[in-house]
Amino acid sequence: MRPIKSLISIEEAKKIIDSRVVPVNRYEAVHLSEATGRVTAESVHSTLDIPPFDRAAMDGYAIIAQDSFGVSKQTTTRLHLFGKIHAGEVPGEKVSQGTCLQIATGAVMPEGADAVIMVEYTELEGNEVVLTKPVYPGENISRAGTDINKGALVLEAGTVLKPAHIGSLSAIGLDAVKTYVKPGVTVISTGDEVVPPPRELGGGQVYDVNSYTTASLLTQNGAEICLRGPCKDDPEAIVDLLKDEDADVVVFTGGSSVGERDILIDALESHGEVLFHGIAVKPGKPTLFATKGQQLIFGMPGYPASCLSNGYMLLVPVVRKMAHLPDLVKRTKDLPLGQRVVSSVGRHQLLTVTVEDNVAVPAFKESGAITSMSKADGYIEILSNVDLVDKGEIVKVTFF
Amino acid sequence: MRPIKSLISIEEAKKIIDSRVVPVNRYEAVHLSEATGRVTAESVHSTLDIPPFDRAAMDGYAIIAQDSFGVSKQTTTRLHLFGKIHAGEVPGEKVSQGTCLQIATGAVMPEGADAVIMVEYTELEGNEVVLTKPVYPGENISRAGTDINKGALVLEAGTVLKPAHIGSLSAIGLDAVKTYVKPGVTVISTGDEVVPPPRELGGGQVYDVNSYTTASLLTQNGAEICLRGPCKDDPEAIVDLLKDEDADVVVFTGGSSVGERDILIDALESHGEVLFHGIAVKPGKPTLFATKGQQLIFGMPGYPASCLSNGYMLLVPVVRKMAHLPDLVKRTKDLPLGQRVVSSVGRHQLLTVTVEDNVAVPAFKESGAITSMSKADGYIEILSNVDLVDKGEIVKVTFF
Repeated sequence: MRPIKSLISIEEAKKIIDSRVVPVNRYEAVHLSEATGRVTAESVHSTLDIPPFDRAAMDGYAIIAQDSFGVSKQTTTRLHLFGKIHAGEVPGEKVSQGTCLQIATGAVMPEGADAVIMVEYTELEGNEVVLTKPVYPGENISRAGTDINKGALVLEAGTVLKPAHIGSLSAIGLDAVKTYVKPGVTVISTGDEVVPPPRELGGGQVYDVNSYTTASLLTQNGAEICLRGPCKDDPEAIVDLLKDEDADVVVFTGGSSVGERDILIDALESHGEVLFHGIAVKPGKPTLFATKGQQLIFGMPGYPASCLSNGYMLLVPVVRKMAHLPDLVKRTKDLPLGQRVVSSVGRHQLLTVTVEDNVAVPAFKESGAITSMSKADGYIEILSNVDLVDKGEIVKVTFF
Repeated sequence: MRPIKSLISIEEAKKIIDSRVVPVNRYEAVHLSEATGRVTAESVHSTLDIPPFDRAAMDGYAIIAQDSFGVSKQTTTRLHLFGKIHAGEVPGEKVSQGTCLQIATGAVMPEGADAVIMVEYTELEGNEVVLTKPVYPGENISRAGTDINKGALVLEAGTVLKPAHIGSLSAIGLDAVKTYVKPGVTVISTGDEVVPPPRELGGGQVYDVNSYTTASLLTQNGAEICLRGPCKDDPEAIVDLLKDEDADVVVFTGGSSVGERDILIDALESHGEVLFHGIAVKPGKPTLFATKGQQLIFGMPGYPASCLSNGYMLLVPVVRKMAHLPDLVKRTKDLPLGQRVVSSVGRHQLLTVTVEDNVAVPAFKESGAITSMSKADGYIEILSNVDLVDKGEIVKVTFF
């Protein structure tokens, strides 16, 4: 057994990890129906004017504006109505002085006409339209290219696609968009006692929790997950498994016990470069970070609360940066603490809490308990130079 | 042409809609790998203790605590080491006074032993373990059921599944969970000028934007989308199409022009019950709401900015309530307005803005322009009793 010798601070750990993260630089075309939340890998320019033609912005009559000048409710004028333009059709006839065409919103403006008078300001008498209000040239017309000009930048590279962005892509005739491939994360459970549900438990066995929490957390943050394992606690088996593993990130879950961690360290030292093992954070101390080329390899603590807690702190920023996603906007609230909490100087503590009647009540049971996390609304962080937070002190709760 | 006669307020419209929303009451089992963000349809209780057995919480030696009483660095005691218990195996031998077993974190406590002494407080000499510190009975043992008791409530019905919840389900041996089926939303584009991308545009045609923005927005908010159409502007065709449509919600997009809206109203009046058509909101006035039994039917404005804007205001709350999801937590910020904005009294205005140097700058071009939305960071709302917001006035920006 080799106990962890030197712990590094959480800030240092984050810095070391961040220096090794390379955003994914592979692309794929994604259909618009699947593209929300994905990140564009190139800027998109329009190959056409939107709208593609001058069109009516209102239901009414396409006229020559000059025909309406001087008109009022008292002094009306009459135009000869000689047809109708529906949306989606190309007008065949030309409007000339003293005539008009009925036109629907979105329909192509006919030649000759330079304005649309809204139906509300007219009266129809047989095939004559009575105008009761003047319009100016261009009134109620959307000009070709008003929305998007041919050649204009529609979306920059690196845009996280929201509904309106999807709409601007379909508006210019695209049904797919080039996006960054999601970072691939392979999650490998270790620990000879760990079995996947729903297989029946043998003596001494427990169900795998960490693979599922890690997969859930990282999927939410833009990763593509592959679950592998369980893997035998044996350095050769681990090295063998890593040999043909080309995921951007490999996360080992479990292996928290000293013996298991030693095996993982031995395996990773022979496979790549171990950058740290052991962080001054509670829970989550026995965390290991290694690299092999651009591949990042994490050994996460075996205890479910430790593993998930470190997932939030360490893995989420990695995956989001790789996926070209902005940092997570965390929802926080300042609340009084419900009871005195003692912490160890030198260790950054992440303490889960529930919020009850606007008070942050500690919810942490133990690192081994998934209910330390699942029954909590969020967490508070106690810095490494703080040994005590008193009941009633204001703490910042970060919600899950 | 029948102009909209009476507009109702946005608040009234929301109230009418809300009174007709029935949360989906159909269930499906979902694998844990797909369950994040889904809502549990029943409460889940554990059928076993977690951990299922008393286990070591640390690497060390399983001993009888009494053997360590009175021990110190100066006054050590020695125990006979006669074996090792790995995680995942069932200990065959019993610890008796004066003896101990090496034990790994997570391994089953052997009979006889009632504590684990951490490896740090021992020294190994041949097959004798030297204790340098006393432990109390129960020290470093996680008792069976500490995390979750057999029979205990693990998740309440109606829980929106987060990573830790997924972990608590796998912890009790489940690989799937009963969730509410997502509300089904069928989106039907209408308008004879509208064609889906990437088909080449004919004269007078434009690409469908509204189907894609609506689908994107509602997928984000828990709906299962089916895109249908384009549908002919003909009441019989619409009624025919609705006959075999059993989605929870049907959204017609397009049909904003007076003629098209009339057709949709005629169709919906013969098919079900029209509850309103026309809201005093800008953009988004020509919005129509009807029901047929529990099915909700919306006629959304054809203009892309109007359609999407009303999607945020009217459709998102509907879909979330149907999906058993809580109201959206909107991210807002109070900022000064970058230029004077004039609004019509009697109409609630939603004005899109970009945020530049901590100033909210109006980004709205026109209702027909998707760039009114896609180039914006969020929006401000101008109440119906306000006719002017001055440059520099503080406004609340809601981010998309």
